[in-house]
Amino acid sequence: MKGLMQDWPLVVTNVLDHAAREHGERELVTRSVEGPIRRTTLKDVYSRAKRVAKALVAEGVKPGDRIATMAWNTDRHLEAWYGINGCGAVYHTLNPRLFAEQLVYIMNHAEDKILFVDITFIPVIEAVYSQFETLEKIIVLTDKENLPESALNLFAYEDWLAAFDDNFDWVKVDENDASGLCYTSGTTGNPKGVLYSHRSNIIHALMVNQGDVLGVKSTDALLPVVPMFHANAWALAFSCPMAGAKMVMPGAKMDGESIYELLDSEQVSITAAVPSVWLMLLQYLEKTGKKLPYLKTVMVGGSAAPRYMIEKFEKNYDVEFLHGWGMTEMSPLGTVCKFKHGMQDMEIDAAIDQKLKQGRVPFTVEMKIVDDTGKELPRDGVATGRLMVRGPAVAKAYYKLDTPIIDADGWMDTGDVANIDELGFMQITDRAKDVIKSGGEWISSIDVENIAVGHPDVSMAAVIGMPHKRWEERPLLIVVPNEGSSVIKESMMEFLDGKMAKWWMPNDMLVVDSIPLNATGKISKLTLRKQFADYKFPDDI
Amino acid sequence: MKGLMQDWPLVVTNVLDHAAREHGERELVTRSVEGPIRRTTLKDVYSRAKRVAKALVAEGVKPGDRIATMAWNTDRHLEAWYGINGCGAVYHTLNPRLFAEQLVYIMNHAEDKILFVDITFIPVIEAVYSQFETLEKIIVLTDKENLPESALNLFAYEDWLAAFDDNFDWVKVDENDASGLCYTSGTTGNPKGVLYSHRSNIIHALMVNQGDVLGVKSTDALLPVVPMFHANAWALAFSCPMAGAKMVMPGAKMDGESIYELLDSEQVSITAAVPSVWLMLLQYLEKTGKKLPYLKTVMVGGSAAPRYMIEKFEKNYDVEFLHGWGMTEMSPLGTVCKFKHGMQDMEIDAAIDQKLKQGRVPFTVEMKIVDDTGKELPRDGVATGRLMVRGPAVAKAYYKLDTPIIDADGWMDTGDVANIDELGFMQITDRAKDVIKSGGEWISSIDVENIAVGHPDVSMAAVIGMPHKRWEERPLLIVVPNEGSSVIKESMMEFLDGKMAKWWMPNDMLVVDSIPLNATGKISKLTLRKQFADYKFPDDI
Repeated sequence: MKGLMQDWPLVVTNVLDHAAREHGERELVTRSVEGPIRRTTLKDVYSRAKRVAKALVAEGVKPGDRIATMAWNTDRHLEAWYGINGCGAVYHTLNPRLFAEQLVYIMNHAEDKILFVDITFIPVIEAVYSQFETLEKIIVLTDKENLPESALNLFAYEDWLAAFDDNFDWVKVDENDASGLCYTSGTTGNPKGVLYSHRSNIIHALMVNQGDVLGVKSTDALLPVVPMFHANAWALAFSCPMAGAKMVMPGAKMDGESIYELLDSEQVSITAAVPSVWLMLLQYLEKTGKKLPYLKTVMVGGSAAPRYMIEKFEKNYDVEFLHGWGMTEMSPLGTVCKFKHGMQDMEIDAAIDQKLKQGRVPFTVEMKIVDDTGKELPRDGVATGRLMVRGPAVAKAYYKLDTPIIDADGWMDTGDVANIDELGFMQITDRAKDVIKSGGEWISSIDVENIAVGHPDVSMAAVIGMPHKRWEERPLLIVVPNEGSSVIKESMMEFLDGKMAKWWMPNDMLVVDSIPLNATGKISKLTLRKQFADYKFPDDI
Repeated sequence: MKGLMQDWPLVVTNVLDHAAREHGERELVTRSVEGPIRRTTLKDVYSRAKRVAKALVAEGVKPGDRIATMAWNTDRHLEAWYGINGCGAVYHTLNPRLFAEQLVYIMNHAEDKILFVDITFIPVIEAVYSQFETLEKIIVLTDKENLPESALNLFAYEDWLAAFDDNFDWVKVDENDASGLCYTSGTTGNPKGVLYSHRSNIIHALMVNQGDVLGVKSTDALLPVVPMFHANAWALAFSCPMAGAKMVMPGAKMDGESIYELLDSEQVSITAAVPSVWLMLLQYLEKTGKKLPYLKTVMVGGSAAPRYMIEKFEKNYDVEFLHGWGMTEMSPLGTVCKFKHGMQDMEIDAAIDQKLKQGRVPFTVEMKIVDDTGKELPRDGVATGRLMVRGPAVAKAYYKLDTPIIDADGWMDTGDVANIDELGFMQITDRAKDVIKSGGEWISSIDVENIAVGHPDVSMAAVIGMPHKRWEERPLLIVVPNEGSSVIKESMMEFLDGKMAKWWMPNDMLVVDSIPLNATGKISKLTLRKQFADYKFPDDI
């Protein structure tokens, strides 16, 4: 027997309709790519998104078509997203730091029809434009005055939009229709596309707005430093208009001073970014002695934050530090390290220990850890296993790939290795492919790296598992010394001794000038493994 | 083109699965109907709900069957709900204050198969049992020792449950399948059943857990005084387990002392009830001089709260007073009076003026006011019109009635008359059927009543529109004097003069011993209109 409630679909345009009607005057502040701060409102976003949708329809865009964006977090990028969804099309975010061949592959694979691009990234497009197979039009998110010279046929967004008013009815879509597309930069094989639905975007945004996640309120001002091309800006492009919160968009500038300026002048209460952004901010604050009187919560994801970063925010600046974890395939949010009942009164150092973990799942995300046979492992904070997830905002397959990525019970393998403690707090210990299998036991490459990088003469450390006759694999430590410093193996081993289990100690250390990074700024262990393919441990004869 | 996200249904059992897995040790405290405080956990609710589901299947209950509950807010009532949904059946809540003939009508109309009932209400059932057409079994929510003598064949819940363990797989349902059934006590015609779906219950609970609604956290302790039979206890039966919050269930005792005792001993942070409950609590606090150190938010709905109540909570007890509005047809939440940006710093009296309003819609609820022709009226805080709503947790039809209750665009007429201000804050001014149409303009009967009841000699006041040759209708004021007092028309008119528009002044006043109330404790204007059907205004010759 069916219930008798209304068939009100969970579609993205409903968020913007709500925002315009109930919070129309709420500000949206953008550091424009051209330079000056631009102030608009949610009503403006609505009106301009309608015009974008109308213009796209005039371009011949049909429901389901993919429209690419390569852009910073700005008002224009936001209204383009809603406009794209508003004509039934799919926004496809491009990471401008992708390697050229990946970018070409992705755009051709997605069959992008139109590209919205910021002036900053025109050279990226110019370099590979001739290889695009489906792209019909490039619209630059600026006005005529700021449109750069180019051999390409570029259209200035503001002029393109000028011909259209906002008298437009959103194209009706089903809530299960595709809304967004984002490719993961896989370390092996071609990038794979995650195809978000309207429903998954809405449920994910409601999940993020729960009191125990970010709990966004209309009185909040949010600064999403995390880019919209980085897995939906962690839902903030939907969560903020949903709550009527002020959005503060950082544009192209993420250095400490620029971010501080916005945090302070716009009285930002919640902000979110990867650790490297917060490192720059902390350095700026220390240099200038400035404080963060308005900021309540800083959310960190993308990679694990180091202990000192959490301590500085919590102890020196009285800002709640909130570790999160997720992945493109999860829309992206999986866990947040929000304290439970009984933990509020923890002594600060114990609290920071707990805050180092990636956290617990909010409602709609399910997680478990399993061993190699798929058997669920206990939640004891010790057992580590492959992290499996399930939920309405988790992918079941990649775009145009037939192979499902979930098992018979709907679980997706995250490719991460983690433990979960008795309170349900998860901590990533490694990527499954990076974990070192030594004599049947697992060594976390990340844990060893985090300890090694604490050596006073080391600026960067990577650990990879290398073949070993007796133990199958053993850890090889690769370090970059601080500028002007040098580091020798004996000093490092002495430093590590006592800080980890004996059998976790690297069998050797190599010094290099630099460690390769991938497009998202993480250490590319794949490249490292190739680079050191011929290496043999001295003790492995 | 469809998205490629997981088909994870929004079903009620997913909430309990999440609660047991992620917040299993979180407490549930019940003032048992038998007397003592009982302490269990969310894991216990899960385990016992599994047993309820297994036992119901053994009783032959099939998916879609209606299972009635007539019970206070207790752990047993909660686990019964989840157990009913867990075997695919529909929980049907009965208001024990229903008139006998309504109760019989409702249970026969719903075709209830099994009834879970508290010992308190056995006499209610005994009185009309012979008229039930479909009821097969009565299970009393107690144990053998506390089972009362009765001519009926009663089963003690604990004994009935004892034969079943918790090894049971929830019966799979579709998210659009019915989950709950609640009849509205209409003032005309038979009661009508609102049939909630799993999906509507989940979306509604997520809506309530948004930061700007109740924003429930795992560190919160919630006391739902509002009964589970009163429109889903305002979502709290789902929202609290979803967030892992502690639930404090008041059982049968809602007097000031009993509620205070739980608020204090269980360190309740959020509570919700109709105004009459808070009146009793305030009286108790004033008598004893006690304070509310743990309480952060008191939510009020069901009927409008008077100004002095808001003032006392906010000024004397430093508790956030949160007006809400909704209806059974809305799951029930429609609006909450949560401040927006810019209002936090309002001067306290202006803030309280604003808090008198029913508030603004959170995401997923849409509202508008329209005139008699259906034209939308401005949001200027002045124009009043019929309040129309739309959303995924709003009904589209009543159970077994073919007539849709929504228009072609999906809007449901609430039957309320309201204004909406520029900030989107709605204020109910009357029920549409009670509004007085005088010379083409509307007079709010509620506004006149609220002023009249302020007369020092009056304990209760009702205003109804009576026919008037010149003005079509004019207000007739009916009052009950305070015990030992009397009130004359001239004194009242003098009191009212200057407190309302001249043309709102009642044309006459009658003194009565009592004013009839309906099952939900509201003034029954229908009965009043019948009672005074022959009345003629002295000035209307």
